[in-house]
Amino acid sequence: MTDAGLRAKLISRRVLWEGDVGSFGLDEIVLPSGERTTLALFKHRGASAVVPFLDAENVVLLRQFRHAAGGEIWEVPAGKLDLGEDPLHCAARELEEETGYCAGRVVRTGSVLTTPGFTDERIHLFCAYDLVPGRPAPEAHEVLRTEVLPLARALAMIESGEICDGKTIAALFLAARGGARRE
Amino acid sequence: MTDAGLRAKLISRRVLWEGDVGSFGLDEIVLPSGERTTLALFKHRGASAVVPFLDAENVVLLRQFRHAAGGEIWEVPAGKLDLGEDPLHCAARELEEETGYCAGRVVRTGSVLTTPGFTDERIHLFCAYDLVPGRPAPEAHEVLRTEVLPLARALAMIESGEICDGKTIAALFLAARGGARRE
Repeated sequence: MTDAGLRAKLISRRVLWEGDVGSFGLDEIVLPSGERTTLALFKHRGASAVVPFLDAENVVLLRQFRHAAGGEIWEVPAGKLDLGEDPLHCAARELEEETGYCAGRVVRTGSVLTTPGFTDERIHLFCAYDLVPGRPAPEAHEVLRTEVLPLARALAMIESGEICDGKTIAALFLAARGGARRE
Repeated sequence: MTDAGLRAKLISRRVLWEGDVGSFGLDEIVLPSGERTTLALFKHRGASAVVPFLDAENVVLLRQFRHAAGGEIWEVPAGKLDLGEDPLHCAARELEEETGYCAGRVVRTGSVLTTPGFTDERIHLFCAYDLVPGRPAPEAHEVLRTEVLPLARALAMIESGEICDGKTIAALFLAARGGARRE
């Protein structure tokens, strides 16, 4: 949640790159303090991520190759919003594309601002239940495989440093706090 | 932790912008699958973030203005690494600059990859203890104020959506799991 009481005044934005997920550019702004500054900003369309519960104890995670991380990392299923797409729909779609599972029930647990120093990217977080197995259909550039493990083990893997992806930590924390069960 | 068994082959990198914190550009790579693709990448120097314990129960958080978030958000004290700076030193320095507190003891709890789809940014996470109050010295572009609240309340604020900054969620989770106390 953001307290919008304070606002920056946007003087100009110079776009240096535009892609299907967003754009990168330089915002010249006046801060609430009156200070004038230029900020590098990756404007992002947003994404959804989901903790899929196979049963009361076990969740489905991904081992996904990330160039930026220099190898494979642990992640929850996730992906960018299509243009105008509802975040819940995106969560269910990405779950099916990346793992093959169709969810009978998808519940919103919150959202995360990934790194607000240089992007407005917000990832909407969900838990998914009543999974029915199907056939994954990953995109060509996705290199991933699924693993099933107890939620308690996944939480311990955050503590040990094996899981260090930001959205995954936030999504697992909210799943463990039981936010989903209350809705 | 990253499993470096799989690697992408970098064909070329075209830098579109270079700033003091890193650079933005397009990497043309060959994925482990053999697929050739171009990836927008914000190469980042890295940062540190710290949960400062005022006593056994209470932590010091910031209300910080973020242009990318459109207002003020809750964060732990944090900041970018200076060139060649040790992450622990950075955590202690940012704590003092942003809150005024000098820490008698700073303990590493882990790290977070903020959003590995388009940046290699890693934020190193710490807990700080034995705080001695001093005078904050925020940078000119920083608009922030400190608030003291129980760690248990901060965790509840993640669940309620009041706290949604990624590094802050990860840092509070690790502080709550007691990773720091074991070292």
